[in-house]
Amino acid sequence: MSRTGHEVHLASRPHGWPTLENFHLVKVPVPDPGPGQLLVRNVLMSVDPYMRGRMNDAKSYTPPYALGEALDGGAIGEVVASETDAFRPGDLVQHGKGWREYAVLDERGTHRIDPTVAPVSAYLGPLGGIGLTAYAGLLDVAALQPGDAVFVSAAAGAVGSLAGQIAKLKGASRVVGSAGSDEKVRRLLELGFDAAFNYRDQPVRRSLAEAAPEGIDVYFDNVGGDHLEAALSALRLHGRVAICGMIAQYNATEPVPGPRNLALTISKRLTLRGFLLHDHLGLREQFVGEMSGWLRDGRIRYHETVVEGLENAPSAFLGLLRGENLGKMLVRL
Amino acid sequence: MSRTGHEVHLASRPHGWPTLENFHLVKVPVPDPGPGQLLVRNVLMSVDPYMRGRMNDAKSYTPPYALGEALDGGAIGEVVASETDAFRPGDLVQHGKGWREYAVLDERGTHRIDPTVAPVSAYLGPLGGIGLTAYAGLLDVAALQPGDAVFVSAAAGAVGSLAGQIAKLKGASRVVGSAGSDEKVRRLLELGFDAAFNYRDQPVRRSLAEAAPEGIDVYFDNVGGDHLEAALSALRLHGRVAICGMIAQYNATEPVPGPRNLALTISKRLTLRGFLLHDHLGLREQFVGEMSGWLRDGRIRYHETVVEGLENAPSAFLGLLRGENLGKMLVRL
Repeated sequence: MSRTGHEVHLASRPHGWPTLENFHLVKVPVPDPGPGQLLVRNVLMSVDPYMRGRMNDAKSYTPPYALGEALDGGAIGEVVASETDAFRPGDLVQHGKGWREYAVLDERGTHRIDPTVAPVSAYLGPLGGIGLTAYAGLLDVAALQPGDAVFVSAAAGAVGSLAGQIAKLKGASRVVGSAGSDEKVRRLLELGFDAAFNYRDQPVRRSLAEAAPEGIDVYFDNVGGDHLEAALSALRLHGRVAICGMIAQYNATEPVPGPRNLALTISKRLTLRGFLLHDHLGLREQFVGEMSGWLRDGRIRYHETVVEGLENAPSAFLGLLRGENLGKMLVRL
Repeated sequence: MSRTGHEVHLASRPHGWPTLENFHLVKVPVPDPGPGQLLVRNVLMSVDPYMRGRMNDAKSYTPPYALGEALDGGAIGEVVASETDAFRPGDLVQHGKGWREYAVLDERGTHRIDPTVAPVSAYLGPLGGIGLTAYAGLLDVAALQPGDAVFVSAAAGAVGSLAGQIAKLKGASRVVGSAGSDEKVRRLLELGFDAAFNYRDQPVRRSLAEAAPEGIDVYFDNVGGDHLEAALSALRLHGRVAICGMIAQYNATEPVPGPRNLALTISKRLTLRGFLLHDHLGLREQFVGEMSGWLRDGRIRYHETVVEGLENAPSAFLGLLRGENLGKMLVRL
């Protein structure tokens, strides 16, 4: 075979907010799969906030993207050739080599998906890493208990909207969400959030005090900055913060000062824990069981924003960082 | 009886750093003990950083000191009259009504001490609340494991110097302390700290990187501010912070910005937990057993700075806030 396919390379490292110039669409030859490998044509790929961090050449616990090479990330592909008995042409698989038309995959890290259980895109959404992130953050990291009052920031985002709904399903007494537009606030209320506010309206501290006048027990943090500071003020005794993301800081070129009220952690005996999904994969089986049921019963609803075409993946990613998506941002190839 | 005695009142609430004008020495009549009560003459009292917080009229989980009334805090007294069978004149007792010559006490919250087990002052030091604070912070809050590298700030202070020594006794691979003078740094090395630095010499981040080039697993925080920021940078994967105090912020009149690198909590999956002693009193029996043994065997050493006279208690407290003490700051009456 002498196939060619397109892929998106990191052309240069962004300083502050990325621009389209940081990306480069390249046509490359597609290698044949070796023994134990398979070749897929991607049909759907994910863009996620964590990808911004990997564009920096900073020492971290996940390696940075290499300049002049294809980016990667969650994707779903259809098998076109297989040199392993585990997969056959036509199978749909979930894997980690997005940002390209064709991908050669190893068996390991490639999972067949069943489109009769849920729509294909759900495997990059509520049944995928973002769903498990929301679930693990609430249950493992923040030790959510029935009756807790919960605040979720960036709650109209992919992880946040699931976190709020899972909190309700797990018995939270009150779930409050913040978002960046009035339309998103309305959607949160439709999803069953007890209260929601537009963080651009007034200081977050004031909005949160109005939305949760008796305080909160758990804060699911996707934002950092003023949201974290407001949450520390609102948290009650023995409150817990699951720190999932700090999108407010990802594009900052100067270090962003932390919350000015961290001393409250002492008088209120608060716990703040940062987490990454891969420490919590042990929950996956339990999670898939619960989430499949919730989806089947219509108890979890989710939104997708789908952009068409690999060539538009960079602008989909930029839109994600600007908050233009509602729910999971996907690119259909 | 028509005894009179002196006590120290809060004359006005400090704004920023307290001054002697905020205190007032008053002569008052001493009431007789009622049924079930006892009257003690205090021989020793404690001044502690947490008292600064109680001088503010701020909503908190411990009530503020009242204006025009005696302050309180840990003290040791000799029983002079008893209306309960549990105590006899001549007994030495530990209790919570310091800052006065005579105190009328209830049985509850009053504990007889045994001066043959350890010197009387040790009951306001390593065998008292500060010892248990260090012990609970390391073991309960930071989940110290043998082999961990530990950083303690304000390490020449009463809690800090015990925390460092307990960490070594519990198997820490390396214990680093910070202090505010070269003399204190020398004392830390005498106490068995593996490394110590004067935080006034250069940025804390640099000093800590030199003292713990391979990073730390546990940070026992007494300071907050630049110390916490430096510790977040030095912490390794799954590191833990026990937040015991933030003395850097107690006298600030403007909110102090938090650490600029809190996003590290995500990539390194860090846990930060504030704590107060009274959530950990369940450890007291185990603690007293271990600490008595360590003191008897000379494996824990401690310093005291003793000021003479109740009338000098306010200046002892101010000196404590300025870091003039070495080890526990006490006032002998």
